[in-house]
Amino acid sequence: MPDTTTPDSASLSPTLALACELMRRPSVTPDDAGCQDVIAMRLERLGFHLERLPFGDVENLWAVRGHHGPVLAFAGHTDVVPSGPEVRWQHPPFSPHIDAEGMLWGRGAADMKGSLAAMVTAVERFVATHPEHPGKIAFLITSDEEGPAIDGTRAVVEHLREQHDRLDYCIVGEPSSTTRIGDTIKNGRRGSLGGVLHVKGTQGHVAYPHMARNPIHEAMPALDALVSECWDSGNDHFPATSFQISNIRAGGGATNVIPGELDIIFNFRYSTEVTHEQLQERTEAILTSYGLDYRLEWTLNGEPFLTDHGELIDATIACTEDVVGRRPQLSTAGGTSDGRFIASLGSQVVELGPLNATIHQVDERVRADDLERLSDIYEAILSRLLV
Amino acid sequence: MPDTTTPDSASLSPTLALACELMRRPSVTPDDAGCQDVIAMRLERLGFHLERLPFGDVENLWAVRGHHGPVLAFAGHTDVVPSGPEVRWQHPPFSPHIDAEGMLWGRGAADMKGSLAAMVTAVERFVATHPEHPGKIAFLITSDEEGPAIDGTRAVVEHLREQHDRLDYCIVGEPSSTTRIGDTIKNGRRGSLGGVLHVKGTQGHVAYPHMARNPIHEAMPALDALVSECWDSGNDHFPATSFQISNIRAGGGATNVIPGELDIIFNFRYSTEVTHEQLQERTEAILTSYGLDYRLEWTLNGEPFLTDHGELIDATIACTEDVVGRRPQLSTAGGTSDGRFIASLGSQVVELGPLNATIHQVDERVRADDLERLSDIYEAILSRLLV
Repeated sequence: MPDTTTPDSASLSPTLALACELMRRPSVTPDDAGCQDVIAMRLERLGFHLERLPFGDVENLWAVRGHHGPVLAFAGHTDVVPSGPEVRWQHPPFSPHIDAEGMLWGRGAADMKGSLAAMVTAVERFVATHPEHPGKIAFLITSDEEGPAIDGTRAVVEHLREQHDRLDYCIVGEPSSTTRIGDTIKNGRRGSLGGVLHVKGTQGHVAYPHMARNPIHEAMPALDALVSECWDSGNDHFPATSFQISNIRAGGGATNVIPGELDIIFNFRYSTEVTHEQLQERTEAILTSYGLDYRLEWTLNGEPFLTDHGELIDATIACTEDVVGRRPQLSTAGGTSDGRFIASLGSQVVELGPLNATIHQVDERVRADDLERLSDIYEAILSRLLV
Repeated sequence: MPDTTTPDSASLSPTLALACELMRRPSVTPDDAGCQDVIAMRLERLGFHLERLPFGDVENLWAVRGHHGPVLAFAGHTDVVPSGPEVRWQHPPFSPHIDAEGMLWGRGAADMKGSLAAMVTAVERFVATHPEHPGKIAFLITSDEEGPAIDGTRAVVEHLREQHDRLDYCIVGEPSSTTRIGDTIKNGRRGSLGGVLHVKGTQGHVAYPHMARNPIHEAMPALDALVSECWDSGNDHFPATSFQISNIRAGGGATNVIPGELDIIFNFRYSTEVTHEQLQERTEAILTSYGLDYRLEWTLNGEPFLTDHGELIDATIACTEDVVGRRPQLSTAGGTSDGRFIASLGSQVVELGPLNATIHQVDERVRADDLERLSDIYEAILSRLLV
């Protein structure tokens, strides 16, 4: 560990200096820890109109510059996941550090304070050269993307909907890249539908199975049918819908007791070829066809969204290729993101950010240089869509 | 509760007085709490030769009267299962009580201090009338039948085997009756074979199922095959072998994680048509045929035993019918018993005792009069086999 000091802001590029300023704030969900004040001050200086939209214990910021024409919004979150035990980090998680190889270390470097910094400096450069740009530039920032995600982007989007605010294009700063900056752009996400299933049997002694009904035995063929079911075949943008049992539990440890209940937790990651209503209906039809005595609770974590074509996709692909020299691929893989809420406004939505290799882990880090490239791409998209 | 005092021994029959004397001793496994001293004193007075055979923390008593000819042994245990919360009992579990309806209440009334008392008084009456009986009468008493059952009857049987002691007939005092005293005689028990199965998968995120291997999904068809398998069809004395999963567990509660391991506990109750080696081999063949990556630990809790005919069965059926006026049925149902160890000596073994409706429960109780009938049956069998 040749150098563990926090980098001197004066010696850093504007993007890295801002990234470090945000990363020094331990903004674990839903705590914003002052990050939005930092961003708001920078945007206010550029002439943005600011609206603070706190909901519950979540801080949100909606900022707009310009008066007419299409709206291009940058969306992101200031909150980060917990660091875990700090001693396991090579560098303290909330003391950003740039090492001799040019890696920026710290919680939020990739997810997603680096992207926020790249967005702000991209806009600063764009506004400097296009002070009277057509269209509008907006920022939608929340401090609850990693948590329940109820009072964050979702609530801001509802507010915008009530205000009849239009949102044509949205770039979400989620870390979309996999091995090189800009190699992957996310243009959608699968839906996530969760189920908690309780199968009822009749408890008894293993020596008297005829006097009991073993819920494990009764559920087995039905569960096997759910696992084997072809829910859809996916499409050009989505892999086939997948069903996974994450938890199964029956029995209190006694080896001679047939348990009376079986508890199962499962999850669908689903494409735009099915709806959550169809999945629920088909699941229940299978369970019922096997004669199970069951109770089932559903949780819709997120509906799928897709931006399959349009100016934003074209601009993002072209600008990324211009900056990094390689054509990016489109992907809808991975978990849910706040993009699903924004897409519900009818916006074109893409996600473009740094490498996701270390997110949510100890020693989260990105190539410092990647954040500069990212800022260049964001600026190029602004020029392409708003000039 | 008209009367909660302990019955006055002077007013009780010898069988009930002895049952109460044993039941007052809280001999929770493996504690004998002096019960064997009480029995030993009574047997010594009858001229029995006593052998105390303590193994580990378990007290065992082997007592023999007579010198030549066939050996008829009475077998039983002084230990009882815990009472559970005493406040839930209508009468304190270790203060035997006979109510106005003639029910004897208390832990061990049915399982099996009542039987022990009935055996001792039966022998006392038999010896009084046949002081020079041919054959030998024996008692095999342990304080660990309800527990691990390793240092109890099993150890005594090994000792007898080493001594080349013969044991022709054995009556175990387990509560075999179901609705009326003497309605059921057990002439065998199924075997019990336990398995603990660990299925290995690869942990991962539910959003990336192609990078994980879900052990629940992989195990499902194999488990369904085990549940559906016809292990045998039983025979005249045994129902078909049964396979039951008593516990299943995977996942740590997180809804978005594919678990890395699945743990299952299962149990076979098996007939004399298969061996435990065959069951193990067939189980492993099924698991392997489904390509599972698994680890499996077996525990042989007890091999099946059967006394399908012979003098002891004939005598027990005839004497029971004589005393209670109805022909008893033979059964091999229920859990394991110490009979399995004794049968390994080549003995004919039957189990005959009071009603098992309340055993191992709060408010364990038997009809006081049933213990008198039981003692009469035991005495009649002695007369039939040893005179």
